Amino acid sequence: MKKILNQPESYVDEMLSGFTAAHPEYYEQPDRRVIVRAGGSVQGKVGIVTGGGSGHLPIFTGYVGPGFLDACAVGDVFASPSAEQMASAIRHANGGAGVLRLYGNYGGDVMNFDMAGEMVEMEDDIATATVLLADDVVSAPKQEAEKRRGVAGMVYAFKIAGAAADTRADLGEVTRIAQKAADSCRSIGMALSPCIVPQAGKATFAIGEDEMEMGMGIHGEPGIWRDKLKPADAITDEMIDRILADHEFGKGDRLSVLVNSLGATPLEELYIMYRRVKQRFDDLGAEIVMPLVGRYATSMEMTGATITTLALDEELERYLKAPAACAYWQV
Amino acid sequence: MKKILNQPESYVDEMLSGFTAAHPEYYEQPDRRVIVRAGGSVQGKVGIVTGGGSGHLPIFTGYVGPGFLDACAVGDVFASPSAEQMASAIRHANGGAGVLRLYGNYGGDVMNFDMAGEMVEMEDDIATATVLLADDVVSAPKQEAEKRRGVAGMVYAFKIAGAAADTRADLGEVTRIAQKAADSCRSIGMALSPCIVPQAGKATFAIGEDEMEMGMGIHGEPGIWRDKLKPADAITDEMIDRILADHEFGKGDRLSVLVNSLGATPLEELYIMYRRVKQRFDDLGAEIVMPLVGRYATSMEMTGATITTLALDEELERYLKAPAACAYWQV
Repeated sequence: MKKILNQPESYVDEMLSGFTAAHPEYYEQPDRRVIVRAGGSVQGKVGIVTGGGSGHLPIFTGYVGPGFLDACAVGDVFASPSAEQMASAIRHANGGAGVLRLYGNYGGDVMNFDMAGEMVEMEDDIATATVLLADDVVSAPKQEAEKRRGVAGMVYAFKIAGAAADTRADLGEVTRIAQKAADSCRSIGMALSPCIVPQAGKATFAIGEDEMEMGMGIHGEPGIWRDKLKPADAITDEMIDRILADHEFGKGDRLSVLVNSLGATPLEELYIMYRRVKQRFDDLGAEIVMPLVGRYATSMEMTGATITTLALDEELERYLKAPAACAYWQV
Repeated sequence: MKKILNQPESYVDEMLSGFTAAHPEYYEQPDRRVIVRAGGSVQGKVGIVTGGGSGHLPIFTGYVGPGFLDACAVGDVFASPSAEQMASAIRHANGGAGVLRLYGNYGGDVMNFDMAGEMVEMEDDIATATVLLADDVVSAPKQEAEKRRGVAGMVYAFKIAGAAADTRADLGEVTRIAQKAADSCRSIGMALSPCIVPQAGKATFAIGEDEMEMGMGIHGEPGIWRDKLKPADAITDEMIDRILADHEFGKGDRLSVLVNSLGATPLEELYIMYRRVKQRFDDLGAEIVMPLVGRYATSMEMTGATITTLALDEELERYLKAPAACAYWQV
């Protein structure tokens, strides 16, 4: 297993120890598997909490910070945090104005976050609401969009919900805006090589030297189709076509685009893809605003990339551009 | 070859096209292989120029920006830019106060940058100076430190030289400070897997499933010794011990530390290493200031990491903390 670690069992706790030691200006760890903003929750502001498995940095816990999230519950690699950890994160995010649970649509996370919501409403009288990210267009057909997985679109939802909460909007309004951001995201992924989960110690899937997996999930879930490796422009076109089939963009539309490495794929290759993405939206007459190119939502050392579009209206664009800061993204 | 690209021959040009399209607020491309700050050179400020092979993003060209570099000459993957490209970068960096060439100690780069310096001094009457980064402690013994390779320490030198130039210090003074930053950096690398150069289409070296290469260069140059893969703390200790043997740190000393992924190694594993780095310097009574953990100087999709220390005095710490902005690092 070619990874830099001590014991698989201590991977996440040692990671969090280094993470908070490296960035004390952004992160505090009030509980074993909970990360909160330095300084804690903000009184009178709707708290925004997320959670999910480890192995996706900067997702999830990296996006805790001013203008982003208030707290995050941290699971083992690719595993849901417990309901207790999520309840603790909600309590730490609470500034007296309610807490929005904003996370990806995965069974274990949904079950535990629902339970955590009940716990804090009963025990602590904290009002909560939920917005699920389900942006992976190929993980279920459009008529069953609620079954889709949440992937890199989470990054946009965190940014926009965080900015909305910063205006001191109430829980209903922050929830509305976060839901609008979630509904405006479309993502698709592709992979060239798997990753290694520390506790398993082996690759999450096998793939030939000349193959690529299209529609891959961020935990190594099988893709939708496997193909011979194609040139970058053909791969990018296929991904963009799938997104456009689900959400049309045309003349005068404004959007943001995230071209994201799943881990190993270098920035150089993301820019080769972004070049093509830009050509495609230029051809449609749509304008890309504040593009993101880099590692925003990863699957450890997986080779591959995802493309996410965020359709903008005036409100979403304003929140996207509002000031925010964490260790990985500063606006 | 598991890479996302169109043709190997167009890799760098297509990458630059996407790079400038994604970040027009930071970068412009006035010449085919030259990247300059958006808005061009700053009148009356010493220009700072770098250059080198592609495949190391964010190094080199990513660090063009306010408080960092003024221009960069961009070579093919792991290949020096030409003297003409370097001369063009120097001309574009020139704001009338002279230009510092600040780059890594590699034969081809040194030869071409020296030639470029002669060209602009003769043809354009631009005064230039040179500071070479040679921070890789294991690439040559201490008594031949001038033979060492330049690796991730470049990131610190770019930051500090850029801040010094922003004070409108003259060329001699900017050169003095940049040299001090270069002399204060120590780096060491280790790799678990090679990378693939697009034009070669195959791995830069072969390594066993249970082996690691210590003292690896950032172009896949062979390491100094090969060992069985060890636990993260043992690897980190061995790297820190090599640095400490070259540059002592003790009680009350201040330093910055960069724990850098060579590409594929995930952030999670860098934090596991940083946790140990922090313990080691805590034990010495030395204080880490503004640690950097992430991908700052890569070798495409190589798996592995480097550790760099920057010994600080009051002057270097002030310049390290001065405002600066590029697409990858904002202070």
